[in-house]
Order: sequence, then structure tokens, then C-alpha cells
Amino acid sequence: MTSKFEINSLNTQIQEQVQHIINHKTKPLGALGILEDLALRICLIQETVSPKIASPTVVVFAGDHGITQEGVSPYPQEVSWQMVMNFIAGGAAINVFTKQNGWDILVVDAGVNHDFDPALPLQHLKVAKGTQNFLHSPAMTKAQLDEALEKGANLVQKIHDQGSNCIAFGEMGIGNTSAAAAIMHKITGIAMEACAGRGTGLNDEGLEKKIAILKQAIINNPAYTPEEILQTFGGFEIAMIVGAMLSAAQQKMLIVVDGFIVSSALLIAHALYPQILDYCVFAHQSDETGHKQMLQFLKAKPLLNLNMRLGEGTGAALALPIIQASVNFINEMSSFESAGVRESEDR
Amino acid sequence: MTSKFEINSLNTQIQEQVQHIINHKTKPLGALGILEDLALRICLIQETVSPKIASPTVVVFAGDHGITQEGVSPYPQEVSWQMVMNFIAGGAAINVFTKQNGWDILVVDAGVNHDFDPALPLQHLKVAKGTQNFLHSPAMTKAQLDEALEKGANLVQKIHDQGSNCIAFGEMGIGNTSAAAAIMHKITGIAMEACAGRGTGLNDEGLEKKIAILKQAIINNPAYTPEEILQTFGGFEIAMIVGAMLSAAQQKMLIVVDGFIVSSALLIAHALYPQILDYCVFAHQSDETGHKQMLQFLKAKPLLNLNMRLGEGTGAALALPIIQASVNFINEMSSFESAGVRESEDR
Repeated sequence: MTSKFEINSLNTQIQEQVQHIINHKTKPLGALGILEDLALRICLIQETVSPKIASPTVVVFAGDHGITQEGVSPYPQEVSWQMVMNFIAGGAAINVFTKQNGWDILVVDAGVNHDFDPALPLQHLKVAKGTQNFLHSPAMTKAQLDEALEKGANLVQKIHDQGSNCIAFGEMGIGNTSAAAAIMHKITGIAMEACAGRGTGLNDEGLEKKIAILKQAIINNPAYTPEEILQTFGGFEIAMIVGAMLSAAQQKMLIVVDGFIVSSALLIAHALYPQILDYCVFAHQSDETGHKQMLQFLKAKPLLNLNMRLGEGTGAALALPIIQASVNFINEMSSFESAGVRESEDR
Repeated sequence: MTSKFEINSLNTQIQEQVQHIINHKTKPLGALGILEDLALRICLIQETVSPKIASPTVVVFAGDHGITQEGVSPYPQEVSWQMVMNFIAGGAAINVFTKQNGWDILVVDAGVNHDFDPALPLQHLKVAKGTQNFLHSPAMTKAQLDEALEKGANLVQKIHDQGSNCIAFGEMGIGNTSAAAAIMHKITGIAMEACAGRGTGLNDEGLEKKIAILKQAIINNPAYTPEEILQTFGGFEIAMIVGAMLSAAQQKMLIVVDGFIVSSALLIAHALYPQILDYCVFAHQSDETGHKQMLQFLKAKPLLNLNMRLGEGTGAALALPIIQASVNFINEMSSFESAGVRESEDR
């Protein structure tokens, strides 16, 4: 299923033209720093010198994880569905931040261990009521993996067709830092001790146990290709995000990458299609252990570093004003010529 | 004049109550990182568990500097007034970012070497048409310093009285990184080489010359107290910002601190009234050499680090959505109890 995407590297034909525009805005050369890089990138993605952010959308995928049977989280599994209800009611952090910054939000049941009322304003895309416990067997079947990838891709296709060109992914799933840590370890080769963190708040003893369980799970379940790794350790929400990201890059959407879990999905997508990075902006560096090294592996420089570790897409939601500012300055700032301001002599 | 301010340390009476509210929001303990610290601080400043940001205002002070006669900037002095005209016309970066993020903006002629039409929508607070060249004599007289401090303080008093509780300061003034570097060196004792930077874009040779001139200026002009240092090396825009900051802290306003120049004003304000830091949020770390160490001297952790070095208040303008998010989460997020979500067992 993952072989069917067509993701192109950026067309750099207008790069010099865009750089000229940026350089002649009323500011010292390069003085807007990362905003200038960002503006250039968005222009190249959209193939225009007048970029815009249209209907930015955060899609929050929720799923449950069999590995929670091993006690890898201080929260019980039922918190996954309870938090989905909180998202629907508008009371979670992601609701507050998307509302503030003008994001649309969609909540997806990718595979929560709960029967939701079909009338709820959810995307009902459940693959199964949680994954298998990957200490003992692969988290999902190949058919389930393909189903999750396809559902994620189709949802993004729909969002794109409705006019969005900017998308972010969030997630909720008790146990999913364990899944993400296993994926990170398998893809990057970094020691499990540097991949696994405290998640929602494990103490030292809990963290030590989590690392031991993850190491045993890796031994118990051989997996080699990116698809096998995703099938073996992933969650349905993570697999859906992989499909969603690949679809978004194919549609030339700007992908705003959130924290540890979402970046683990990107590790898989990137292993399959390295050129996906052309479409990715990294919203923030999470405080969850592992995210910093994950970002280094992807050669990514995050926009924000606010010591957050909440997930849900909250980092991405907070980064939109920075992204919007990069688009606004290239569209709205005067040039030296138009403002009648003298340039420096060596420009 | 600087002795007349009354700035109180924060009243921490409601601290435990606020922390309890933050801890019982539907998120792992501490998972919103710096936003949680920020929310707590704003609650303490405003002495309420329901904080708000009211009429946030950026005041951009412009002034000219006699030291430009020594060739310390690649831009000619006339750019100061031309950029003031650009601010008024709405074409500068600070216009774009304040408009995007909901800041009011006021532009002040603190001491530009130009005759502005009195009908222009400027705050006409000119002390003089630029400072003296501080290589040879103090930049301003004691009377001019007092006038600048008082005008800055009075303007903020007016803004406060019109309903604002959040203020940021920006600046424009060819040559003012030289003034700020001299102030930084005198207040912190850090070597001039680490204080002086490339400003709007000096090359290696230009930077070397700037450092040599600043070192000679320091030798030529003894100055000891914070007021003397400000009078000797400051600009009218910097002195006005000092007065404005002291007035803002006295009024218990939240002060959003911008980059290198504005932080040099804070070094003076802080030397006079250390408790002013209780009211300061540091918007960003500028790429101008010296700002990082300035922030370390003030034990400040900036919200953003986007490699910007533009001034005008642009860093502060971009930080408002982060500050607003901290206020919004404490006001709008559900608690575990209200959302029906189970808390972790060790909470």
C-alpha cells in the first residue's frame, strides 16, 4: 500500500525570484532568520511568490495499545476514550490552542478500545479496539496496517479537496510513547535508553521497567522493513498518521510536525519517501526523551522549544502564528524601493 | 527622576491556588512546560486566577545616535527617519506582525534627526535631533536624560490608563547596537568583544572598527551609576524605554521584552529596580551578538529563538500568541473532574 504514493522533491525554479523579494524587504539581509527560510520553503511548495495558508487543519488520531497490559503508563487505558470525549467537548489543550490560532480540528477514532456513539462528531475510522500487546506478537496484522494507512491517506485527500493546504497531526493513546520509542530505536539504531522516556509521567522505577519491556519486545519480534516495523510496534493512530503524511506530501500540503509520537510516524514515512521532508515544518521540540535526537536524525530545526510534552498536536497548533508570520511578511512588507528607504551600501 | 518609581515584588498569596488549578487541567503534570510557568506568573501579576491580556500595545521608540559619525553602521543615519515613515505607512515587519497578532502599535519620535510634520500620527516626544557622539562626550545631558525618562514613563501611564495591561517596546535608530553594547559592557562587565555585534550587517572589518571605537569611548567617558551609564552611552529611545519599563512595572503591567536594544534598557532598569524582572517575559533570543549573554546575566529564558535580529519589537510581537495561549489554557481547559477523565494514580 505504501508503494502507491508519488511524492516529488520541490521545484526550485522560482527560488532566486523569491530570495530577491525577501532580500529587498525593509530589513537588514537575513534579519528575519528562520522566518525567511520558512517563507522561501512555503513559496517553493506552493510554487508562488504570494503564498497563503488555507484552511489549516489539525487531525487528532486516537488509538489504544496492547502494550499497556505491561504497565508502561501511569494512566489507565480508559483515559484514551475519555480524552476523545474531552476533545469533542472542546475542553482539551488542543481545543484551546486550535481555537485561538485558527486551526480547524478533526478528531479520529483510529482504534480506541471503546464503543463510541456513531452520532458523535468523530471520524469513525476504527481499525480495531486497540492493538495487540507487542511484547508477545506484532501489534497489528498486515491487513490492519494497510487499512490504517489507507484510511489516513483518504482522510487527508478529502481535507485537501475541501481547500486545505496546511495540515498537522496530533494523537492520543495511552501507551503510545512506548510504540514510538520502539519505532525510533528500530529506525535510527539509537539505544533504547535514549528513545524511551517518562511519557505522561513515569517515575524512575516505571521508566526502568518500560525500557526493559521494550528491549524484550524488540528481541521477541523481529522486524526489518519500515512497514514491518510499523506493523509490529505501531499503533493504529501512528499508522494512520503515516498514511496521512504521505498523502499530504503527495498533495503538496505543508505538513506541520508535532512532537514525539507524530515524529515517530514521520520516521517511517521518511524511510519510505525521503523527499517528504521538503513538505515538513517542525513545530517544536518536545520534552519527551528521544524527541531531540529524533529531530537530529531528521536534520530538523524546530520552531519552538517550550518544554512541552503533551501530544494531541499542541506543539503544532502553537506554531501556526510563526508560520503565518512568514507568509505575511513576504506578502505585506514594503521593499526598500516602495518605502523610500535607503539600502545599505554593500547590498 | 529614576528614584520616584514604586515597584513591588509579586504578591504570592494565590500561588498555591493557581498551581492547583494548573495541575488539575486534563494533561499530565507539567506537560505544558513554559506555558505553565507563564500562566502562573501572569496570575500573580494580575492577582487573579482568571487572567487576561487587555489591549496589548507595542511602543516603537526611534532616535538617532551621534556615534554614527564614526561609521559604526553600514546604513546611513537618514534610514532612521525613513523607517519611521515606513512604520507610519504600515510597511515594516513590526506592522505586519502587530496586525497579525492583535497588538496596538504606537510610534514615538524620541529623538530622530529629522523634522517630522506635526500632523503625522506619531508621538512627538523628541528630546533633541539625535544624541552627541559618545566617542568624545556624553550622549546626552542630565536634563535630557530626565526628560527622556519622564516622557517614556508618562506615555506608558497614559496607555495603562486607557486599559492596557500588556506592553512591549520596540526601537529604531541607526547606531543603537553600539549604544546598547556600551551599556551592556558597563553594566555586566562582559568584554566588549562579546557585547558588540554586526548590527544591521557589518562585515569583519567593520565589526573590528566598531569594537575599537567602543573601547575608546569607554576610556574617554567615565560613567559609574546606571543613570550615568545611560546618560553617557544611551540613545533617547533607550532612555525613554527605561522610563517606560519602570512605569509599566509600577502599574503591574506585563512587560514583553524584545531583543538586544530593549534588553540593554532593561539592564539599566534592573540595576535600579531588580524587582522589575517579576513583570518581564522575554520574547526571544536575538541573533545579535551579546543578546544571549545579556539574557544569561538577567537569568532569563526567552520564549522564542528564531535567529532574528531586526529590532522594532518584532520578537515581542511574535511572542504574543504564546503568552495568550498560557492565559487561554488556564481559563478554558477542562479539569480532570469536569471532563470525567481519570487522573494518574500518583497525582
